[in-house]
Amino acid sequence: MKLLANKIFAILNSILPNSENRSLHEPCFQGNEWNYVKDCIDTGWVSSVGKYVDRFEIMLADYTGVARAVAVVNGTAALQVALKLVDVDREDEVLLPTLTFVATANAVSYLGAIPHFVDSEERTLGLDPKKLLSYLQEIGTIRGGECFNRFTGHRIKAVVPMHTFGHPVDLDPLVELCKNFHLVLVEDAAESLGSYYKGKHTGNLGKVSILSFNGNKTITTGGGGAILTNNKELGKFAKHLTTTAKIPHRWEYQHDNIGFNFRLPNINAAIGCAQMEQLDNFINKKRALAERYQDAFKNFDGIKVFKEASFAQSNYWLNVLLFNEIYADQREDLLELTNNNNIMTRPSWTPIHKLTMYKDCPRMDLSVAESLEKRIVNIPSSVIL
Amino acid sequence: MKLLANKIFAILNSILPNSENRSLHEPCFQGNEWNYVKDCIDTGWVSSVGKYVDRFEIMLADYTGVARAVAVVNGTAALQVALKLVDVDREDEVLLPTLTFVATANAVSYLGAIPHFVDSEERTLGLDPKKLLSYLQEIGTIRGGECFNRFTGHRIKAVVPMHTFGHPVDLDPLVELCKNFHLVLVEDAAESLGSYYKGKHTGNLGKVSILSFNGNKTITTGGGGAILTNNKELGKFAKHLTTTAKIPHRWEYQHDNIGFNFRLPNINAAIGCAQMEQLDNFINKKRALAERYQDAFKNFDGIKVFKEASFAQSNYWLNVLLFNEIYADQREDLLELTNNNNIMTRPSWTPIHKLTMYKDCPRMDLSVAESLEKRIVNIPSSVIL
Repeated sequence: MKLLANKIFAILNSILPNSENRSLHEPCFQGNEWNYVKDCIDTGWVSSVGKYVDRFEIMLADYTGVARAVAVVNGTAALQVALKLVDVDREDEVLLPTLTFVATANAVSYLGAIPHFVDSEERTLGLDPKKLLSYLQEIGTIRGGECFNRFTGHRIKAVVPMHTFGHPVDLDPLVELCKNFHLVLVEDAAESLGSYYKGKHTGNLGKVSILSFNGNKTITTGGGGAILTNNKELGKFAKHLTTTAKIPHRWEYQHDNIGFNFRLPNINAAIGCAQMEQLDNFINKKRALAERYQDAFKNFDGIKVFKEASFAQSNYWLNVLLFNEIYADQREDLLELTNNNNIMTRPSWTPIHKLTMYKDCPRMDLSVAESLEKRIVNIPSSVIL
Repeated sequence: MKLLANKIFAILNSILPNSENRSLHEPCFQGNEWNYVKDCIDTGWVSSVGKYVDRFEIMLADYTGVARAVAVVNGTAALQVALKLVDVDREDEVLLPTLTFVATANAVSYLGAIPHFVDSEERTLGLDPKKLLSYLQEIGTIRGGECFNRFTGHRIKAVVPMHTFGHPVDLDPLVELCKNFHLVLVEDAAESLGSYYKGKHTGNLGKVSILSFNGNKTITTGGGGAILTNNKELGKFAKHLTTTAKIPHRWEYQHDNIGFNFRLPNINAAIGCAQMEQLDNFINKKRALAERYQDAFKNFDGIKVFKEASFAQSNYWLNVLLFNEIYADQREDLLELTNNNNIMTRPSWTPIHKLTMYKDCPRMDLSVAESLEKRIVNIPSSVIL
């Protein structure tokens, strides 16, 4: 009965160092983290004053190749502001994969907008552009240069692909589709710092994009995120909006917008700077681990380790064991066996359209996402492994 | 012409140590900050895993005497969730002072609710309960156990007093008023950690209340805040809502609400624990500084240093020089002179009803707040002074 699970467990056990530390994704602090944090505490610059936020933002923009990065408290906050920056309004529909962390949909909800769920494709584990195109041809109608859902009557404003576990979505056809349907592209690159699509860092094709530096991500700031954009004016406005929209003045308190208190504290940015210095090294190690996994499972019947698409270079944030349909019913055995024996694994997120608060949202056929959900297991992927 | 400003400057200059550090409120890190932060970095527990968040929450609840404290990313987020916890809905009106930091109103707006501005009283610098009572008698009407604004037709759901610069509002009449008008009391205690109303720590009379630990506050966590409540069930739900409303499970991802990603990272909570250990000492020093200011200005014609009301014991977060009406036109001279000469001072916030985005919100007569705004100057109040 549990033969498959036992065989997989044995392989994982042989690959992973025999330590207590076989969790899904541990942070790695082997650089200047201490020095920079100590500098913050010694100078008293832990909060909104201090040089690390500026420096972290420049490092992020340089690394990803965007015109401007704005550091904020987390990826969810970044996405909420990103959607606001591209004028997502109350009652607008926003297209996003159902197979993503719930924060992608929550950010849409915070603005009073409506998540509209899109299917995934097995090639990238992310949003399926071809299937979305046929769907939009069926439900979308253009009026006055805007796209409307002909069934709900709501405006469809944006598409938010998410680069699942670090694997880039096929962006070119999405860019094309957005142009044709007057939609704005917003990349949720929360998981894909260090991942490239056709040689360009993820986050460059969205009008606005976002990153996350939560504790389980490739680099961490404790909690943190960033807004990315190649539009300098929009970047400047993002900074303004995320810092309470205060008009600069030596002592006056004037604000010209309903802004947010989303600025990343200096002490968290300090950790981020130290982490960025190590990012290339982290990615090399993570790609090497992915190769070890791929090798180990290459002749395994019924299971494969997910591999980047031909157009992608992935950070392999979380490695994925993908079960064949016929073995999917044995996935729970593996989760049980590994988690009981000091190898942390987890299934995919529950598709968002299955969560109570989102079950009545508009959606297309989601059969691939529903199938993937049953077949995905994430396995330990820390830099230190 | 600038005689008054010069005289005040001379007094401030004689009180304040002749250092480079005469800013409004510097953090003070003289305890275990470094040990605890180093512990986080050494163990890799900087984010959502780790003991400091739990410990910080317990320290906060113990200190303030509430049943439950929930640590979050900042005071604004805390207030947004607090208002949600007491069922503030879209289109509801929420009564709050116009003389407060813009975040108080922003938190209301995030929920799609409407700030409704209330006047202040000179005795506390905060919301005037008596004036609010007469106003509600005029505009409020009770239907089905709820209060409605008879002019706008909107439900009035809550009152949010803010304890200005640490000075407690007169809460008892507010509690009474809330009972009579079926309103929920939510205390914005962002500035009043360590301040007591009739022997009880601020935040105890609100159904839900909030604190802030921004870099300029009495204690800081870099950025941070907390939700306080004496209702254990509500406290538990606050924790759930601020941590993405995930249902606890070893590996499954199920969420039962549109939650928030507002959890305070462990590394920020670590700083908070170290700061809490020093809080009593901080408050003693701040109260001693307030006395020195009061002594120095006690015979000064036309200016007084603001003193706590008889029912209050204040943390004196930011000391206040209050100009007499007739000298208010000389306040700008003082701001200019001090800020040009290494003594940081600032005026009150611009009353929120004067900001573009809130100018059309409902409001009562705001003449006291408008007068106070012209007469307040905050002066350096750091623990180290």
